[in-house]
Amino acid sequence: MNVVDLIRKKRDGNALEKDEINFLISAYCKNKIPDYQFSSFLMATYLKGMTTEETSYLTNAMLHSGKVLNLNSIPGTKIDKHSTGGVGDKTSLIIAPIVAAAGVKVPMISGRGLGHTGGTLDKLESIPGFRTNLSISEYKKVLKKCGAVLIGQTKDIAPADKLIYSLRDVTATVESIPLITASIMSKKLAEGIDGLVLDIKTGNGAFMKEEKDAEELANSLVSTAKSFNKKVIAFITDMNQPLGNYIGNWLEVYEAIDILKEEKKNDLYELCIKLAGTMIYLGEGSSTLKEGELIAKEQITNGKAFEKFIEIAEAQNGNVKYLHNPGKYRKPKFKKVIKSLEDGFLNRVNTFEIGMAAVELGAGRLKLDDKIDPKAGIKFNFKIGDKINKGDILAELYSDNKNKISNVEKRFNKLVGLSDKKVNPPKLIKKIIN
Amino acid sequence: MNVVDLIRKKRDGNALEKDEINFLISAYCKNKIPDYQFSSFLMATYLKGMTTEETSYLTNAMLHSGKVLNLNSIPGTKIDKHSTGGVGDKTSLIIAPIVAAAGVKVPMISGRGLGHTGGTLDKLESIPGFRTNLSISEYKKVLKKCGAVLIGQTKDIAPADKLIYSLRDVTATVESIPLITASIMSKKLAEGIDGLVLDIKTGNGAFMKEEKDAEELANSLVSTAKSFNKKVIAFITDMNQPLGNYIGNWLEVYEAIDILKEEKKNDLYELCIKLAGTMIYLGEGSSTLKEGELIAKEQITNGKAFEKFIEIAEAQNGNVKYLHNPGKYRKPKFKKVIKSLEDGFLNRVNTFEIGMAAVELGAGRLKLDDKIDPKAGIKFNFKIGDKINKGDILAELYSDNKNKISNVEKRFNKLVGLSDKKVNPPKLIKKIIN
Repeated sequence: MNVVDLIRKKRDGNALEKDEINFLISAYCKNKIPDYQFSSFLMATYLKGMTTEETSYLTNAMLHSGKVLNLNSIPGTKIDKHSTGGVGDKTSLIIAPIVAAAGVKVPMISGRGLGHTGGTLDKLESIPGFRTNLSISEYKKVLKKCGAVLIGQTKDIAPADKLIYSLRDVTATVESIPLITASIMSKKLAEGIDGLVLDIKTGNGAFMKEEKDAEELANSLVSTAKSFNKKVIAFITDMNQPLGNYIGNWLEVYEAIDILKEEKKNDLYELCIKLAGTMIYLGEGSSTLKEGELIAKEQITNGKAFEKFIEIAEAQNGNVKYLHNPGKYRKPKFKKVIKSLEDGFLNRVNTFEIGMAAVELGAGRLKLDDKIDPKAGIKFNFKIGDKINKGDILAELYSDNKNKISNVEKRFNKLVGLSDKKVNPPKLIKKIIN
Repeated sequence: MNVVDLIRKKRDGNALEKDEINFLISAYCKNKIPDYQFSSFLMATYLKGMTTEETSYLTNAMLHSGKVLNLNSIPGTKIDKHSTGGVGDKTSLIIAPIVAAAGVKVPMISGRGLGHTGGTLDKLESIPGFRTNLSISEYKKVLKKCGAVLIGQTKDIAPADKLIYSLRDVTATVESIPLITASIMSKKLAEGIDGLVLDIKTGNGAFMKEEKDAEELANSLVSTAKSFNKKVIAFITDMNQPLGNYIGNWLEVYEAIDILKEEKKNDLYELCIKLAGTMIYLGEGSSTLKEGELIAKEQITNGKAFEKFIEIAEAQNGNVKYLHNPGKYRKPKFKKVIKSLEDGFLNRVNTFEIGMAAVELGAGRLKLDDKIDPKAGIKFNFKIGDKINKGDILAELYSDNKNKISNVEKRFNKLVGLSDKKVNPPKLIKKIIN
């Protein structure tokens, strides 16, 4: 097969065949296609798109570039959740134990935070001792024992994705629906799952700012999952404000514990029940979605979800005394309170910039090798629609770095907008696609 | 400036600024932008196009990547001709002496044949001793003395073009109007010309199969030339059959001599008079196009064009005894006559495949380092519309290689189509753009 002919075919808007896509991915991974040809192919794909079939072929080729886990030795249906990422999104920490407590297996391979969004692995690793770098056999052992496991990607899983993503990142070909779809799905399918719940964020703190783009991605992910005979339901959810009230790794674990102990019921709780309920339904733990949600709530009320959280953390070497007694966790050196400068109803939150502020305080990274401070972050007290009085505490900033805390303090008030008139809260769940 | 931002800008269909294009070309030439980013930019440009301004900026950046010749020390207006290439196109050999004989300077930097088309340099080098690799000072000397000079591209002229072309060739980004325009114009403008006549071929033996594509390229080239204050006229001409009757390097020199000596008046003669007349007009050797053509014809009739051809060849070290007496040239080892298998009017010539047949016989190259046999080639006896009788000699094949001549012989009859009904000859000059 001639690479230039295949680039030309895509460039001219024609659909590639399965064996053509297999050839491109396999030869690129073997270093037989140079980067400059592959990047030209990526740009042609970006601009000309791919059919549902091509996207599925691409996913398949990337999936089989590495190890595909087989979890058949572990009984039960395995369901995972994937979120496209947002600010304050700690749902994985909450729903994995809920769903496992309900008897559905949750094999989760997660990522790290980059840019304005956090990552599940960083949050988990803020728990002293917690290991996310389990071997595949440890992964299976924990999953079998606890019904859920949360680890980081190994180099054996979809190595084509890592290679291709690095090239996309430097050739302006990241924001492509088929390329994003294949990237997400090749990794998820490699986990050995039977089904997947997707949380596609949209809004000013999401990668997909526009709801129509989020919907397009959701449709593409759902079609691709179905083409692999996986059960799948996607939610388009709001990311025009942080999810929950805490942003930052330990702070988010802290809030997850609050939810799991039923000490708090907020937008985060609502989303977790929806996602966990759907996972339980897909995992045949309920006969309807509604029943799935009721079962999810029950796992919180009866204490089993929190117990499961402790069990998983213990199995992954986490020091659970901090989870039982979060007050024991060491405090950041500095704390700064941000007060509202005026009265009004909260109507705009610059979620992206709040994410970036948390990164500056030490909670995230701009480059893959940046160090993270697990204690750093932001507590953001209000939700869109809330009535705020001048002098109310809008947010609290936490950091070990005095300069950075004062940098963020200076700009923080500009990141929110108040209105004189009453403001309707945004709808959290915008659409369900299946 | 950030390369990824510039790729993204082009990808999203926005026009780049002059300094942005300068940065891209200059940094790429200095190896500061890797091939994989530049190829992504090339594909974005292929698919999103460029405005007239951007094309002019790109031409300018590529032009100034190398030496720009200054011919001010040589009096008179300097006019060149560029053809997009076809089969049997030996016009440069004929019009350079005609125009120089008429007193207009012709500084010509030409290329080699590749694929189905021939190249002026290969044709000239079939003349024993003829040097096309003159230094810049020799180039100026011959131009001053003879009024015309024909050399090959030096590595100082528009080096960006060579770099970029090599990358386009392997990334399916060759057939892009702005990229072709900048490639052609950057080299032509570096010659130090005042004006340019363009011969844009269209048809089954041309790079631009469709007339609308040829017209689009012609318009782009004309606008770009004008943006550099150059006089310019473009012709869209027919390439649905070989130009003249001979294909192959020495065979084409031979036919050029026939035309220059007025021993033959065919489509080649007609096109040469048109192109040379236009060059004379642009070079202020006539006050109208019509007068330019009359002057061109006169140079043939009065023998001055042929004399000039001899003078140029001599100045470039050619052994002119072969030009005075072409019969002295050594003959190919094998000759094969192809006879028509039926009666009819010639209505279809597979010009591309006839070009490829000449390459197989030894007249051209498929890779840049292939060797050429100057004697090899094809004499094709008929023009579209001609009445042919069964048994008439359609063509003669010449080669030193017996196998190849018999390979070509086997398929040759299929390369032409005859019709029972009368066929109108195609119009040679399809359009004039200025």
